[in-house]
Amino acid sequence: MAGVQGHALAAAVAQAGALGSVPSATYTAEGLHAELQALVERIGADAAYNVNFFCHAVPTADVAAQHAWLDALAPHYQRLGISAPDPGGFAASRAPYSAAVAAVVAPFKPRVMSFHFGLPAPALVAHAKAWGAVVLASATTVEEGVWLQANGADAVIAQGLEAGGHRGHFLLDGRSPSDALLLAQQMGTAALVPQLVAALNVPVIAAGGIASAAGVRAALALGAAGVQVGTAYLLSPEALTSPLHRAALQGPRAAHTALTHLFTGRPARGIVNALMQDLGPLHPAAPAFPLSTAALAPLRAAAEKAGSADYSALWAGQHARAARPLPAAEITAELLRGFAPA
Amino acid sequence: MAGVQGHALAAAVAQAGALGSVPSATYTAEGLHAELQALVERIGADAAYNVNFFCHAVPTADVAAQHAWLDALAPHYQRLGISAPDPGGFAASRAPYSAAVAAVVAPFKPRVMSFHFGLPAPALVAHAKAWGAVVLASATTVEEGVWLQANGADAVIAQGLEAGGHRGHFLLDGRSPSDALLLAQQMGTAALVPQLVAALNVPVIAAGGIASAAGVRAALALGAAGVQVGTAYLLSPEALTSPLHRAALQGPRAAHTALTHLFTGRPARGIVNALMQDLGPLHPAAPAFPLSTAALAPLRAAAEKAGSADYSALWAGQHARAARPLPAAEITAELLRGFAPA
Repeated sequence: MAGVQGHALAAAVAQAGALGSVPSATYTAEGLHAELQALVERIGADAAYNVNFFCHAVPTADVAAQHAWLDALAPHYQRLGISAPDPGGFAASRAPYSAAVAAVVAPFKPRVMSFHFGLPAPALVAHAKAWGAVVLASATTVEEGVWLQANGADAVIAQGLEAGGHRGHFLLDGRSPSDALLLAQQMGTAALVPQLVAALNVPVIAAGGIASAAGVRAALALGAAGVQVGTAYLLSPEALTSPLHRAALQGPRAAHTALTHLFTGRPARGIVNALMQDLGPLHPAAPAFPLSTAALAPLRAAAEKAGSADYSALWAGQHARAARPLPAAEITAELLRGFAPA
Repeated sequence: MAGVQGHALAAAVAQAGALGSVPSATYTAEGLHAELQALVERIGADAAYNVNFFCHAVPTADVAAQHAWLDALAPHYQRLGISAPDPGGFAASRAPYSAAVAAVVAPFKPRVMSFHFGLPAPALVAHAKAWGAVVLASATTVEEGVWLQANGADAVIAQGLEAGGHRGHFLLDGRSPSDALLLAQQMGTAALVPQLVAALNVPVIAAGGIASAAGVRAALALGAAGVQVGTAYLLSPEALTSPLHRAALQGPRAAHTALTHLFTGRPARGIVNALMQDLGPLHPAAPAFPLSTAALAPLRAAAEKAGSADYSALWAGQHARAARPLPAAEITAELLRGFAPA
């Protein structure tokens, strides 16, 4: 939930009796330190919380790819009457977990560390375990779950296709010519969870489509040991969800999400908007993750200034209509009811 | 499950205490009559069973489209060393429900009639209800569920994205330029079932990924009144699943299914094979449903003769690895355990 939450939501969830998370992919070192500091000031340094990181390979700069992407976006720059940016000046919008990031995190000794797009280098996994962290990582296939268990994951998050935000697949390349084939193979929660439970010895945490006590009960019936919930919190006052994003979540458009790599270069689930409809959710010119973002930033800024989310990444899962504008404590209490005996 | 089952599996399921189905999209009138006759001889004319039909619009013949499709397939004809068929000579492989088909079915008065791709004409729905049939139909979105309830469905099948075989979507056209966008929006069972339960007054039947008592319990937790199960029966001795299809279901390839329209012209889920890898699961030249099938038939026949499923539609859901070579009665008993109090 990088970009739509910080320490406030994590603290509220922790205080309500669940495990709050701080998504860290978009922070600078200073920003991450400040969030963690603010969190422990709220819930105490010994309280349990999770810090979540991406661990993708950083792509090499490719000016030709940026030119092609700007060509694809040119009609949109014309439409909004703004100038396209310099194709050589793009910075990565998201950074992977690294030794430098670990140096910021380690003093806090978070009890749980979770990773998306695989795991970081073995030394970094060992480092986290050395300070006592439980290590979680996301699997979208049985093969990925087996790989994560073999490489140190203490529990595996079964990320069903329903989930909002970035797909966590990492064993198959998401940008090959068979991108469509890859995504067509991604599994729903109902199929993925029981297959991971059958294949693994470590606990499985179900994610994707879970937004209520009923969803929790269903996940537990499938053999999950816990659940990971994101979209259900997007309308809480503690989330940093933008007003345009909140409006989309509460309107009819929330009924239709799709997996798209337009906004970052990796497939992620968000509410269908004008850019996705115009270019299609997968476009061959979208640069590698996370280098698609920069060329869209001026379009997004101009559109949002005019009250439009036509170019915004409106991350949401397939059960977005279950998101409610309630305090995080109430949403958490509802989910926790799913763990009580029926 | 048209093509992989007939009255034998339906009878075994009925005798085990569940509702057996006869999939009827690929039968001639004579074939359908023979199947229904054989079924009622096995289970009795008063026993409950379901007859399932497609109700797509029949496309107009389009020789240019067939030429384009044969052009796309030309390398495969060369590879197998066989001649491509006459592009003008294609017959539809599947027929929709019609007054003529109803005339075959009506004397049997099946207690349940189920439809895929929407519902037939209102008069045909009324006809089935007049002989006492309960009418079921598949929804892949909340909008489709609302439409089906308003147009006479007595219960709605929530077809989650995990399900094998043809996607049942009908309110959005599956062959538009935004085919990829449409399929990217299809929902997993965990998200679709609770949203349909919340939106509808009629009972919701969960389908997709359900292959065990645990899966049934999860569906019931989400509010489903029942479940529809297909893939779990594909290896039963009563199914008509081909030896090549059975081998694929029991091998490592069963881990990867995808939605493809190559085999019929409509997106359907099957085990990934050579044709899907070569053309991609969605190819712009695939003719409208069901007219993609004929041009593939000679390739399929030649490959299968040589022991290869490279051109075969290996329909299966995302939980295919849960299929077991057990009698249908045992598979049914396992599923029924999911309805018992925990």
